[in-house]
Amino acid sequence: MKNELIKIKSILPLQKAPLVHCITNDITLETVANTILYLGGKPIMSSDTREFSSLFQSTDALLLNMGRLNESHEQSLSQASSLADMTKKPTVVDLVGYGITNERTKLGMAMARNHPTVIKGNTSEIRRFVGLPSLAKGIDGASSDQHDQALKDLILSLKQITTEYADTVFVATGKKDVIVQNDKHLILSNGVDELDKFVGTGDMVGAIITTLLAVGEDPWVASQFAISYLNVAAEKALSLTNGMENFRREVLNQIDLLGRNQQWATKIKYSNF
Amino acid sequence: MKNELIKIKSILPLQKAPLVHCITNDITLETVANTILYLGGKPIMSSDTREFSSLFQSTDALLLNMGRLNESHEQSLSQASSLADMTKKPTVVDLVGYGITNERTKLGMAMARNHPTVIKGNTSEIRRFVGLPSLAKGIDGASSDQHDQALKDLILSLKQITTEYADTVFVATGKKDVIVQNDKHLILSNGVDELDKFVGTGDMVGAIITTLLAVGEDPWVASQFAISYLNVAAEKALSLTNGMENFRREVLNQIDLLGRNQQWATKIKYSNF
Amino acid sequence: MKNELIKIKSILPLQKAPLVHCITNDITLETVANTILYLGGKPIMSSDTREFSSLFQSTDALLLNMGRLNESHEQSLSQASSLADMTKKPTVVDLVGYGITNERTKLGMAMARNHPTVIKGNTSEIRRFVGLPSLAKGIDGASSDQHDQALKDLILSLKQITTEYADTVFVATGKKDVIVQNDKHLILSNGVDELDKFVGTGDMVGAIITTLLAVGEDPWVASQFAISYLNVAAEKALSLTNGMENFRREVLNQIDLLGRNQQWATKIKYSNF
Repeated sequence: MKNELIKIKSILPLQKAPLVHCITNDITLETVANTILYLGGKPIMSSDTREFSSLFQSTDALLLNMGRLNESHEQSLSQASSLADMTKKPTVVDLVGYGITNERTKLGMAMARNHPTVIKGNTSEIRRFVGLPSLAKGIDGASSDQHDQALKDLILSLKQITTEYADTVFVATGKKDVIVQNDKHLILSNGVDELDKFVGTGDMVGAIITTLLAVGEDPWVASQFAISYLNVAAEKALSLTNGMENFRREVLNQIDLLGRNQQWATKIKYSNF
Repeated sequence: MKNELIKIKSILPLQKAPLVHCITNDITLETVANTILYLGGKPIMSSDTREFSSLFQSTDALLLNMGRLNESHEQSLSQASSLADMTKKPTVVDLVGYGITNERTKLGMAMARNHPTVIKGNTSEIRRFVGLPSLAKGIDGASSDQHDQALKDLILSLKQITTEYADTVFVATGKKDVIVQNDKHLILSNGVDELDKFVGTGDMVGAIITTLLAVGEDPWVASQFAISYLNVAAEKALSLTNGMENFRREVLNQIDLLGRNQQWATKIKYSNF
Repeated sequence: MKNELIKIKSILPLQKAPLVHCITNDITLETVANTILYLGGKPIMSSDTREFSSLFQSTDALLLNMGRLNESHEQSLSQASSLADMTKKPTVVDLVGYGITNERTKLGMAMARNHPTVIKGNTSEIRRFVGLPSLAKGIDGASSDQHDQALKDLILSLKQITTEYADTVFVATGKKDVIVQNDKHLILSNGVDELDKFVGTGDMVGAIITTLLAVGEDPWVASQFAISYLNVAAEKALSLTNGMENFRREVLNQIDLLGRNQQWATKIKYSNF
């Protein structure tokens, strides 16, 4: 863990500005693009399947976020996912709304099978992905899916399916955040409740992981970094502001500011049961 | 009125977090979603017709906003409107741009006939809806449509058509805001001119009404609350900031903060001719 | 130049609120709409080809921005461009991503041939447009395309092609900004590096130029104004804030505030080689 902390501290500033291709929901397009820019990456927000083969020649990583699904978005995600598998493009799949409709379940499963580097979702989405029951309604995570026993079950289930998903890193976000890869797991417990009260925090975590994959970071380290960086940024933002919109703005602001001082990483809280 | 004020004061904090399904324009998707979240609701921004029948099983209310119309958005609005009528889902129709093109007029009329709980628009849109002349250009309201005599005509016309729209609450926003249901009406006069100088304030009013319908509030009370809450939030925001973008941000911030103290409701200004 | 400065100083406040029709990318829809509103214009963000002929009867100018291209966006841009040519609507074409894919090159060229009032892009996009090599990757400008010799080549090439584009004003943005019309050119050197670190600054320049065309300003003056106004706003915003999201917000805020005092224009820096 100590070595990983040293790695995490040294990630920012990025040594180059990678091209991060995002196929993502149109609710938070601007916020996701700015998150990547504030970290030092260059976002390309193209969902036009006609452009994929030429874009893939210069992009460094790919984000596939299935929020606000529709037929056109589904086609873009599906084709890019196949192309990423063929070209071994580092890829993050964000299973937004997995299991709440047949379309999302089918698409999410198809993208998961295309060997993405990281598969993420909130705890309820990942529970549904591994076949555990979930009490969540809508696209948000249910708190009942986040108790310690529920997380233990989730980690166990993820470790069982990693035989089918060798090396893929699974990220389940919630009050506590879980990362699983093959037979290892990690629980992180930073963050504030207010992160669930504006739209796009999950999208931002996906964008941060993708930006780090785009500069060649290890996905296990990149996932730890992304979750912790957003959570610590939120802790700081909450202490500086009053009111949700000011908090939201300051979280984005801290995406830029926090990493200027490596000491942010000393705030990371690892958790055990 | 006193009883209504007591009801209005007791609305926040919401007793549960309702699922609010929004089919709305893609200019202010993020702002509308955050407005609902800041009030304590959970937005679902799906416009995918394939998902409607399963989503309708868990959503508590529906917003149909015809801003930035296109064929795909039109289909989503049209199908959801029919489904809402069949399933008696509490529904707000926002007639953005009604009367400025044939497509919007036809669609707006069709949605209005599907027994929505609330029909809203700016004064110029609602004037065109009831067949009165309007001098507005573009999607904004014209000031000439907002003089007292013009408002009197509008109220009279709305009361005449309520025979066809029994129980539907009509909301016309402008310098003064008008609410009509069957044979009763109400005029509210809070707010600041700056609310017309950023995009999405009308969308936010629609989102607030829908969130309140989603927790079972009466549509007459919900409409009063939504108009007054945004207007008083704007009055406060204007007093705290300098410059339109700071004002805009603070209006959103006050959506969260204002209701923490019930005294906000004492600022509501009812108006007579 | 002195006469132009006097004109530039007198542009704000706008004498009327023009209708500005924007067919633009859906990443920065809200930001572009607010930019126009803060300047005193009224944006109409319709991309629905069915609405164009009726909208064109009341709109004062047209923005065609080919960011986040897809087939539907391409059709909207293409049809509006033809209609603008036929009806002599003042039009700004923003060549976002020109040359990075075949679709964008073909569409950009087609729109350029329809006699737009202004053609803009970043330095790398405009280099590709005139047939010069560019080292940029993605949709951003490469710094190697912005050295003095590179700018000299660009100006020379633009002056050569103006025989085919009589009277069209070309705007190439970068560290230094270049404006060319027929045989005259101008180099401006305000601005801060941080403008490249959030999404939409190019879109905002296009929106500002279009708003000024919509009130009848000369395109040469409008282009100078737009570039300088955003750049000086950014210089001010940077001095007032810490962190990229606060900077971004304050740039938007200054779009409203800066022009309240004509002295902003004394900060404009003209440059020579």
